[in-house]
Amino acid sequence: MSKIDQTRLQLMDRYWKAANYLTVGQIYLQSNPLLKEPLRPEHIKPRLLGHWGTSPGLSFIYIHLNRLIQDHNVDMIYLAGPGHGGPALLANVYLEGTYSEIYPRVTQDEAGMYHLFRQFSTPGGVPSHVSVPTPGSIHEGGELGYVLSHAFGAAFDNPNLIVTAVVGDGEAETGPLEGAWKSIRFLNPERDGAVLPILHLNGYKISGPTVWGRSSNEEVQSFLSGIGYEVFFVEGDDPMMMHQAFAETLETCYEKIRAYQEDARKNGFHGRPRWPAIVLRTPKGWTGPHEVDNVQIEGTFRAHQVPVSEVKTNAEHLAILENWLRSYHPEENFDERGHLVPELAALAPRGNRRMGANPHANGGKLLTNLVLPDFTQYGIDVKEPGTERHESTRQLGKFMRDIFVRNTQHENFRLFCPDETNSNRLGNVFEVENRCLVEPILPNDDHVSPNGRVMEVLSEHLCEGWLEGYLLTGRHGLFATYESFAMVADSMMIQHGKWLQESLKLPWRRPISSLNILLTSTCWRNDHNGFSHQGPGLIDTILSRKGEVSRIYLPPDANCLLSVADHCFRSRNYVNLIVIDKQPQLQWLTMEEAVEHCTRGLSTWQWASNDEKVEPDIVLACAGDIVTMETIAAAWWLRQHLPELKVRVVNVVDLMTLNPPNLHPHGLDEATFVEHFTEDKPVIFAFHGYQRAIHQIVHGRPNAERFHVRGFNEQGTTTTPFDMVVLNGVSRYHLAMLAMEFAPRVQKLTPPLRQECEDMLNKHESYVQANLQDMPEIQNWVWSNKA
Amino acid sequence: MSKIDQTRLQLMDRYWKAANYLTVGQIYLQSNPLLKEPLRPEHIKPRLLGHWGTSPGLSFIYIHLNRLIQDHNVDMIYLAGPGHGGPALLANVYLEGTYSEIYPRVTQDEAGMYHLFRQFSTPGGVPSHVSVPTPGSIHEGGELGYVLSHAFGAAFDNPNLIVTAVVGDGEAETGPLEGAWKSIRFLNPERDGAVLPILHLNGYKISGPTVWGRSSNEEVQSFLSGIGYEVFFVEGDDPMMMHQAFAETLETCYEKIRAYQEDARKNGFHGRPRWPAIVLRTPKGWTGPHEVDNVQIEGTFRAHQVPVSEVKTNAEHLAILENWLRSYHPEENFDERGHLVPELAALAPRGNRRMGANPHANGGKLLTNLVLPDFTQYGIDVKEPGTERHESTRQLGKFMRDIFVRNTQHENFRLFCPDETNSNRLGNVFEVENRCLVEPILPNDDHVSPNGRVMEVLSEHLCEGWLEGYLLTGRHGLFATYESFAMVADSMMIQHGKWLQESLKLPWRRPISSLNILLTSTCWRNDHNGFSHQGPGLIDTILSRKGEVSRIYLPPDANCLLSVADHCFRSRNYVNLIVIDKQPQLQWLTMEEAVEHCTRGLSTWQWASNDEKVEPDIVLACAGDIVTMETIAAAWWLRQHLPELKVRVVNVVDLMTLNPPNLHPHGLDEATFVEHFTEDKPVIFAFHGYQRAIHQIVHGRPNAERFHVRGFNEQGTTTTPFDMVVLNGVSRYHLAMLAMEFAPRVQKLTPPLRQECEDMLNKHESYVQANLQDMPEIQNWVWSNKA
Repeated sequence: MSKIDQTRLQLMDRYWKAANYLTVGQIYLQSNPLLKEPLRPEHIKPRLLGHWGTSPGLSFIYIHLNRLIQDHNVDMIYLAGPGHGGPALLANVYLEGTYSEIYPRVTQDEAGMYHLFRQFSTPGGVPSHVSVPTPGSIHEGGELGYVLSHAFGAAFDNPNLIVTAVVGDGEAETGPLEGAWKSIRFLNPERDGAVLPILHLNGYKISGPTVWGRSSNEEVQSFLSGIGYEVFFVEGDDPMMMHQAFAETLETCYEKIRAYQEDARKNGFHGRPRWPAIVLRTPKGWTGPHEVDNVQIEGTFRAHQVPVSEVKTNAEHLAILENWLRSYHPEENFDERGHLVPELAALAPRGNRRMGANPHANGGKLLTNLVLPDFTQYGIDVKEPGTERHESTRQLGKFMRDIFVRNTQHENFRLFCPDETNSNRLGNVFEVENRCLVEPILPNDDHVSPNGRVMEVLSEHLCEGWLEGYLLTGRHGLFATYESFAMVADSMMIQHGKWLQESLKLPWRRPISSLNILLTSTCWRNDHNGFSHQGPGLIDTILSRKGEVSRIYLPPDANCLLSVADHCFRSRNYVNLIVIDKQPQLQWLTMEEAVEHCTRGLSTWQWASNDEKVEPDIVLACAGDIVTMETIAAAWWLRQHLPELKVRVVNVVDLMTLNPPNLHPHGLDEATFVEHFTEDKPVIFAFHGYQRAIHQIVHGRPNAERFHVRGFNEQGTTTTPFDMVVLNGVSRYHLAMLAMEFAPRVQKLTPPLRQECEDMLNKHESYVQANLQDMPEIQNWVWSNKA
Repeated sequence: MSKIDQTRLQLMDRYWKAANYLTVGQIYLQSNPLLKEPLRPEHIKPRLLGHWGTSPGLSFIYIHLNRLIQDHNVDMIYLAGPGHGGPALLANVYLEGTYSEIYPRVTQDEAGMYHLFRQFSTPGGVPSHVSVPTPGSIHEGGELGYVLSHAFGAAFDNPNLIVTAVVGDGEAETGPLEGAWKSIRFLNPERDGAVLPILHLNGYKISGPTVWGRSSNEEVQSFLSGIGYEVFFVEGDDPMMMHQAFAETLETCYEKIRAYQEDARKNGFHGRPRWPAIVLRTPKGWTGPHEVDNVQIEGTFRAHQVPVSEVKTNAEHLAILENWLRSYHPEENFDERGHLVPELAALAPRGNRRMGANPHANGGKLLTNLVLPDFTQYGIDVKEPGTERHESTRQLGKFMRDIFVRNTQHENFRLFCPDETNSNRLGNVFEVENRCLVEPILPNDDHVSPNGRVMEVLSEHLCEGWLEGYLLTGRHGLFATYESFAMVADSMMIQHGKWLQESLKLPWRRPISSLNILLTSTCWRNDHNGFSHQGPGLIDTILSRKGEVSRIYLPPDANCLLSVADHCFRSRNYVNLIVIDKQPQLQWLTMEEAVEHCTRGLSTWQWASNDEKVEPDIVLACAGDIVTMETIAAAWWLRQHLPELKVRVVNVVDLMTLNPPNLHPHGLDEATFVEHFTEDKPVIFAFHGYQRAIHQIVHGRPNAERFHVRGFNEQGTTTTPFDMVVLNGVSRYHLAMLAMEFAPRVQKLTPPLRQECEDMLNKHESYVQANLQDMPEIQNWVWSNKA
C-alpha cells in the first residue's frame, strides 16, 4: 500500500515507543519519570502491579487506528477486551490529550507524568484495568466475555460509527465471547455502524497456552469464515514490518467496511456482507525483556504481568528494567519538560475524533429522551378490583409498539428477547416492528427482517450485552426474558451495576438510560415447564447492588405495570428489574389508583382491608402479582369467616421502599413505614421471591421479627398454578391460617376455621393426585367487596 | 453401506413410528391410548402441553443409536440438548423397557400406556422435559447451553464410553454452547471416551428462524472444521432415504471414532483426531400435520409446541389429530394388549446397553470413593494463634497433589480452573499432574500435556459444565475459581442443585460426589484488581438452594480449610461452597483444634475471649478469613484498652449452622445457639459476604435484631487490603467501635477510646491519600495472647 510512507510509519513507531514507555512507567516508577537520572531502587514502586503482556499490542492497535482516523476522519471507538491492559489505554489517552482534559492534575508534562505513574494501581489511585474512569471506554475488561456484544450494541443504529473491538486470546475462550461472533447476523450495513474485531493472539493466558493461540491459521480462518467474516492475518515481531503490514490491512478493512455500507445505503440492503476481521499474532510482552535470569520472558506466559520483578533488590534486574525503559528513547520522544515532541503529537486525531474523547463512549452526551406516549391510554378499565382477568404484559406490548412508532426518526429504541416476544405477550410490537435477522427471509417467516429492532436470539448473554452496549452509547431499550433463565446473565447485570455506581462518582460521565429488565414467565406460572424453569433469584442479585443504582418493581397488575414501565423508561443510571407474569391475571387498580400506588411504592389497600378506624390485628402484606392474588383471597376469606379479625392489606410494588432509608433512597421513613405496617402488629408477608430476602430488607425496622414471610421456597415441579402456591406454603389458605395463628385476639375462635383451611388444602391435594386441573373454587375465584 | 439391509431399516422406521405415536399420545391423550375407538373429544387432555417440534428428530436419532449399539455392543449414553423433547425420550425408554423397570406402574401394555400418556406434563405427573426422573439422562435441557460441556465431562476418563450429544439449533445460539464445541481440544483419544455431537437443525425456535438453521452447509462446515471436527451432513424429509443416509453416516462416524481411539491406544497419542460431528437437517415437527387451517405447520416454527390445538372443540382439528396418530399405525406396531410387537422389541439393545439403563447415566452406581490421604499431614504447625502468615490454599494444593497420586489407578479425579491453578497457590499439583491440552506442546510450556487432569480453560461455563458431567457419571473433582467471576456460572450451579434436590426423591438415582467449589481470590484481597473483581455474591446464590443440597464453608485458616476439604471430598449430593483467600494470612488453630472446630461448625474461641465464668457484654462473631483477622484484632484491641469489657469471640466456619434447624440440617438447636451467642447480648457479626445475608439466616433466632452485621457492602476499588475492610466498615476499629457502642455497661468509659479508633482510621485515610501501602501497624500486626 503506497498511501502510508515509511517516514510516517517511523513516526508511528516512535509514538508506539512513547506509549510503551508510559506503560512500563506506570507499572514500575514512582519517581524519576523521564529517566533524567540513572534508575535507582527508590524510583521503583514498593508493590509492582499491572499487566505488561497484552499492553504493547493494545497500544500498537491504538496508534494505527489513530492513523486511520486521521486519514479518513473516522468516527471510531475502541473496546479493549483484554482490560488488564489498562496502562496501555491510559498511556494512549494521555498522549492524545484527553486524559489531561478530564483529569487536570495529570498534565502533559513531567509533573503530570509523575502523577500518571504514581496513581496507577495504587491506593487511592486508578484501577489496573480499563474501566469507568478511563476516557473513551464503555467496556471494562474485568469479567471477560462481552467485548463483542458490547461492540455490536454500540454499533446498532449508529450508521457512521466503527467500533474496533480487541479480543484477547484468553477472552476468546469464554462462551459468551464465542457466542458473540455471530452478531454480524444481526448487523445491517444500511442502518447500523460496523464492528471491526481484532483477535489479538499472543498465545498465552496467565500460565498456560490458549486454544486459539495454539490453533493454525487455517483453523482460525475456517472458524471465523463459517460465522461470516473475511479474515486478515497480520503476524510477526519485527516492528517496522508489522507496522507496514498492519497499516495496509487496516486500510483494506476500512475500505471494505465503507464499500459494503455505501453499497447498502445506495442500493438498499441485499445480503449480509463478509465483514472483515483481523487476526493479529504478536509475541506476548512484545518489545519487553526477552530473557531474565536465563529464562525466556518475551513471547511466553511469563510476560503476562510484571516480567522482571526483583528490580528493587536485584541490580541485574534493575539494569534490565532501565535498558528496557531506555530502549523506548524517552529523551527523543518527550522534550525536556515532558511534553510529547510535536512531530509525534501531530499523529493523534483532533477533538472528538480522539478515541478518548469520542462522545459515543460517554453516551449520555448523545442521549435523546424517549418520546413516550401517554401510558395511561393503554390501561385496563378496572370497574371493580379482582373481577376480570387480563394478560398484563399485553398492555405493555401495546405501549412499546407506540414507543417504537413515536421514536422512529430517532432510531434509538430496541427490544431484546431470547426468542419470546410473542410468548411473553408483547407481540403487539410486531404491528410496527420486526424481528431482526440479516439472513435470507423465507415465506413462512413471521415478521423477520434485516431492518427489525426486536432482537430475538436464544442467548441471554447476547441480549444483555447488546443492550448494555446500546445504552452505554446513549440509547434506550428493554430486555424481556424468562425469570429463571435471567440468571444466565446475572453476572453481567452485576458488572453493569458496578459500572453505573462508579460512573456516579465521575461528573464527566453523563447519565445514561437505565438497564430495564422485564422478568415474565415467572416461577409461579411455570407450572407446566417444571422445576428448572422456576427460580426468582435475580431479585436477590439485584438486591445486593448499591441503592444508588438498583430498583426492583413487582407490579400486581397491568395498570401498575404501565406506570412502572413509564417511570423506568424515563429513568437514568439504574438497573430496573420489573417482575410480572404473562398469563391472564386478575386486575386490581384503576389507572388513577395505579399511578398513585406506584408513586408511593406501597399502599394500604383499604378496599381489601376491614380495619377502618381501628388498629388492625394483623397486616397482610404482599409483593408480586400471584402472591397478591393469594393475599387478597386470604383477606376475603377471613372477612367472610372471621369478620371480627381486623385485617389490613398492604401491597408493595417498589420493593426498595421497605429498606431503611440509609440503605436505599426509596426507603420509607420510619413514620410512613409504621403508618402502613403498624409499630408492632404481626405482618404476614407473601413475597414473589425467595422468602428470606424480605428479612434482610426489613432488618432494622421496628420489631422486624414480627414479619412472617412466605415466598418461593424452592419447591416446584410440573403441576397446576394453584399447587405451586400450595407447595410453597403461600396459598390463600396458608396465609389465612398464619393470620389466625399470629393474631392473639382471635386465637380462641379459630381452630374450626383453621381446620376448614386444612380441609381445602387436602381437597386440593386429592385433585393433584388425580392429575386434575385446579379446583373450580380456585379457578373461578373473584374478589367481592361486598362479602 | 451394505451392512444394514432395507428390511431392518423398515423395521426401524416402524419402531420410529411407534415412538412418534407415543410422543403424540403423551401430548394429547388422556384415554383411548391404543386408538381402539374412534377419537373423541373426551379422549383429549384438558390442557395440551409439550413440544412436538424437536421430538421426531430426537426419536429418529435414538433409534439409530439403538441399531449402532446392537451391532457393535457400544457403551453409549444420549444427552438431549433440546430437553423440551421430553416425550420423545420418554417414549424411547418406555419402548426399550427401562421405564417400566423403574416405574412399575407404567407397564408395557395398554394400562401402562394409559399412565404414560396421562402422567405427562400433568399435575402430580412427570415434567415435560428430559429431567431427573427420565431414565438414562444426566442432562436437563431446561436452561440451554450445557449439553456439550456435560457430554465431554462424561467422556473424560471413560475410554469406552461414547456420549451422543444432540444440540438443538436454539441451544446452538447460546454462548456457553458455542464455547463448548472446542472441548475436543481437551479430549485425549488414548485416555478419554468420545463425544459424538449431532447438531440437529430444524430451522426455528419458538417463533423465529435460527442463526445456524439459516446458515448454508458451507458455513456450518467451515465453522465446525475450524474448531477441529470432520462434519457429516444428513438432510431431507423422506423417512426411508433419511434412514439409509443416517445409518450410513452413523456407521462411518463410529468407525472413525474407534479407529482414532485404537490408533492412539496402540501407538500412543500423536495428535488430535478430526473427530466426527453430524449435522442433521430435518423439518421441524417432521411427520406431523403438514397444514392446519390452510397454514403450513410441518417445517415451520408453528410446529414448535402443540401443532393442532383446537382438537377438543373443532371436529376438523380432531380429525387431523386422529389421522396423524393413525399414520403411525399403532395397530401394527403394538399388539392387542399394547405390547410392542416382537419384531420391533428386538430392535432395542439389551440390559445395560439400553441407553435408559446405562449405569454411566446413574453415576452413583459406578462411584468409587476417593482414596484420601490423611489431610492432617498437610497441616500447619500453629504454635500460637495469629503469629505466622501462610498461604492457606497452598496446603490444599499439597493435599490434592497426593489425592491425584493415590487415585492414579482409578483415573477419577480432576481439578478445573479458569487459568488460575498456580495463581491460586494450588501449584503443588503440578509436581504430579499437568494442565490438559490436546494441541502441540512447545518448549516454553509449563506442565502442559494431553494427559493432564488439571483442566485450565478461560471459561467458567466449561469448567463447571465439564465438572458436572464428570460428577454425574460417578467421578470426583473440584472447581477452583475467582470469587467474583464464579457468578458467571452461578445459574449452572443453581440448576445442578435443582438436579440434586430432585434426585433425592428418586431412590433409584444413586448418590454422586458433591459439586465442590473453591472460591479464592476473594473480594477482600482483590485490592489490586479493583471493583470488578470484588463480589461475594455466590454465597447468596447458594443460600437460596434447599438445605438438603447446599453447604457453605468459610474456613479461617489452612488447617480448617484442610478439614473442610476432606469433608467435602467425602460428601455426596451436595453443592459445597468453600471460600478462602490465597494470600498469606495469619493462622489460628492447631490441626486438632481445627478438626474440632469444623466438626462443630462454629465455636467460641476462648483464647480470643475474656468472658471466663461470666456472661459476656458482647459477642464478636465472624465468618470468613479476612474478617476473622479483623475480629481477633478488635478483640485484642479491646482487651488492651478496655479490659473490663467482657468479649466473647465466636468463629463460624459452617455458615449453615446459623440457620434454624427446620431450614437446614446443619442448623444448631436453639440451646447450642444460645450457648454461643447468648440469649440477648449484642452480637457484632463480621461477615465475609454481603452483610444482610446474615439477617436472613438468623431470622427466627432469639432476639435476632441484636445481630449487627458488617460485611462486604459493595464498596471497592484499587487500594490496599486494609482499606478494603475500612471502606466496607468492617475493620478492627469499626468493630471495636461497634462493640463499645452496643455494650451498655461500658458506654460511659468509651468516648475517648472511640476517638482513638477514629484517629487510627483517619491516619489510615491519610496513608491512602498519599498512595502509600498499609500502615505498618496493620501490616505487621500479630495476635498476642498475653496482652
